[in-house]
Amino acid sequence: MGHAVAQSDAARMSFTGRHLTVDWIDAHRSVYDAIWLWDNSAGHRNPSNGQRLIDATDLPTDPLIEAVDSQAKVLVIRWAGSDLISQYDLGWLRNNCYCRLEPAPGGKQVVLWRAAEAPWLTRVDANEVWQSEQVRHTWLTAVALQGIAFLKRAPAREGIVLELARLVGFVRETNYGRVFNVRTLPDPNNLAYSNKGLALHTDNPYREPVPGLQMLHCISSSDTGGDSTFADGFAVADSLRCDEPDSFSILSQVPVRFSFRDRTADLSSARPLIQLDLHGRLEAIHYNSRSIAPLRLPPSDMVPFYRAYRSFARRLHTPEFLFQTRLEIGDVVLFDNRRVLHGRTEFSPAANRHLQGCYLDRDGLFSNIAVLERSLETQGRWTS
Amino acid sequence: MGHAVAQSDAARMSFTGRHLTVDWIDAHRSVYDAIWLWDNSAGHRNPSNGQRLIDATDLPTDPLIEAVDSQAKVLVIRWAGSDLISQYDLGWLRNNCYCRLEPAPGGKQVVLWRAAEAPWLTRVDANEVWQSEQVRHTWLTAVALQGIAFLKRAPAREGIVLELARLVGFVRETNYGRVFNVRTLPDPNNLAYSNKGLALHTDNPYREPVPGLQMLHCISSSDTGGDSTFADGFAVADSLRCDEPDSFSILSQVPVRFSFRDRTADLSSARPLIQLDLHGRLEAIHYNSRSIAPLRLPPSDMVPFYRAYRSFARRLHTPEFLFQTRLEIGDVVLFDNRRVLHGRTEFSPAANRHLQGCYLDRDGLFSNIAVLERSLETQGRWTS
Repeated sequence: MGHAVAQSDAARMSFTGRHLTVDWIDAHRSVYDAIWLWDNSAGHRNPSNGQRLIDATDLPTDPLIEAVDSQAKVLVIRWAGSDLISQYDLGWLRNNCYCRLEPAPGGKQVVLWRAAEAPWLTRVDANEVWQSEQVRHTWLTAVALQGIAFLKRAPAREGIVLELARLVGFVRETNYGRVFNVRTLPDPNNLAYSNKGLALHTDNPYREPVPGLQMLHCISSSDTGGDSTFADGFAVADSLRCDEPDSFSILSQVPVRFSFRDRTADLSSARPLIQLDLHGRLEAIHYNSRSIAPLRLPPSDMVPFYRAYRSFARRLHTPEFLFQTRLEIGDVVLFDNRRVLHGRTEFSPAANRHLQGCYLDRDGLFSNIAVLERSLETQGRWTS
Repeated sequence: MGHAVAQSDAARMSFTGRHLTVDWIDAHRSVYDAIWLWDNSAGHRNPSNGQRLIDATDLPTDPLIEAVDSQAKVLVIRWAGSDLISQYDLGWLRNNCYCRLEPAPGGKQVVLWRAAEAPWLTRVDANEVWQSEQVRHTWLTAVALQGIAFLKRAPAREGIVLELARLVGFVRETNYGRVFNVRTLPDPNNLAYSNKGLALHTDNPYREPVPGLQMLHCISSSDTGGDSTFADGFAVADSLRCDEPDSFSILSQVPVRFSFRDRTADLSSARPLIQLDLHGRLEAIHYNSRSIAPLRLPPSDMVPFYRAYRSFARRLHTPEFLFQTRLEIGDVVLFDNRRVLHGRTEFSPAANRHLQGCYLDRDGLFSNIAVLERSLETQGRWTS
């Protein structure tokens, strides 16, 4: 005693042909199946990038452990009827123990927010995200956790949105371009390009895939009206699940078709308003009154669906969830378009309101957070 | 009699407060709920792009039909306690009847194929897809239906893949670039950039979203080896569903984590190997032995999962499904990366094999098919 022991120190090991049992020094017990061990033999992976060198067809049906040996921090397994000698780092084995289902690697806990918490959403200086890895990490992590974050004092000129996008990930080009300009146009192909108010919505649920992130940069604003509105769709769905479980169930199980059509595009895709993953956790919100195609549901489902749909819509627009704010010139908002709904209040048709925006894929955000964490960890400025 | 009657001619109409019943001249009966009718009132949509002008919060709880009138091809509804007068085109009403669940608009029936059918997969001349809308439609529709199609005789120079991509949709940029070059590199960051054979796989299941389409253009080929392999993952999954329903069930219900990490990227995403939509129909296949992270499943699921996984892998590589072919210089293959698996045989490290590729989003494909159909229809050269 007296010196720290690593969690990955094994106190005791035992095995049968099909299982290896490790009792760790902190009293946790791991049981590994032989086929999992064969599959994860260190020699079956490229040491530099971790890619597996064998295919699932190369796995034997029923590999049997013949002998287990452990030296220093390495475990060695010999197999019955095979020349393979498998090695494992003990720390790696401990980290990949599957006896308890721990949070998925890289998976962070989402933080729900309501309008009352909105004043505390992350706001950082645009110039600092360029200069400081730490500030950049703060900004991107806020988008991952709260689904939204703001930048202040970005230069108010066109193209800035693409320069900032490079810090986040890769731009998702669509028929609206790599960049789109939200301002009043005569006879617009989309209501967004008018002076009308827009109720809360997510963008482009008629696309496949639906754009993951959206960035909007305020280049000029109107004197009155044209405020921005936001709501955390996950928080709304979460409250619906508690208060009206039947409505929640309908909205998460009934796919709805969204469509958009103009001269050069004809887009259509079906998805539920509340999308769950295989564990029943919230995965995405798809909500856009403007682009829902005429509903086609079994007749017995139609009226119950409308009841649930209106209920979600009403809840969304209550002061509990709806956060109204004003984007000033130079402000930038980055949000998860499959979680946070956005909208705006009406403004004067004469106003020169101009937002420039772009869509981005989500994987770039998570990848950049992880790479920043590696770098900050090396500098001793970040720990998980 | 004696002249054709349109399906959208209504023979008889009746209503109660909450329902409108229409008996059409072809004997089909449609029953519309009042709330659906209110929602779809012609005045609630922008006439030029069809976007809805009202939000779900604007819908009354329980609108009641007061009077129904029909003149020529237009139906008019007046509502109890409201000034709204709703108009509907009868043909539109008929097309949007939801009493029978017809195939979704734009939804096409997928055509499964096995190796024996592969010689009949679509192959068209690359020069013609530029010049002819009809040939372009043939090419893109084949990708939508069979998940794969080939072009012959494209110019064998770099950048062609991006020129062709413009005919399909929008390029999905990733950390591998807008374009990637599949050729042998010293110390590659990905096994794809070596001379090793690659078992059948889908690309990048560790991304979110997973790239939808992949285009590969053969610029130079090796004399021996380096053949391409393909299999229709939907056909394999379909056969598994029939023969081994338990394996199918495990692979469609257990999310698996895929990951990739190099100096500048750190990507990780969990998804089932066989992804189903809410109707239980095949939506995607995610299969990549190289990038599956060490499995973390409840211990009781581990061995059954491996049994199902190996079973899928073995089936995939049987001559029934595996199609081996050779990309000649100037050949281009475009395939659905969430359905069709691809791989290659090993080739000499000295060979100068070079494929140039890119990823694309899927919605562009479907949008371009629909826009081409509009144009061909106008020319009288296509009917659905």
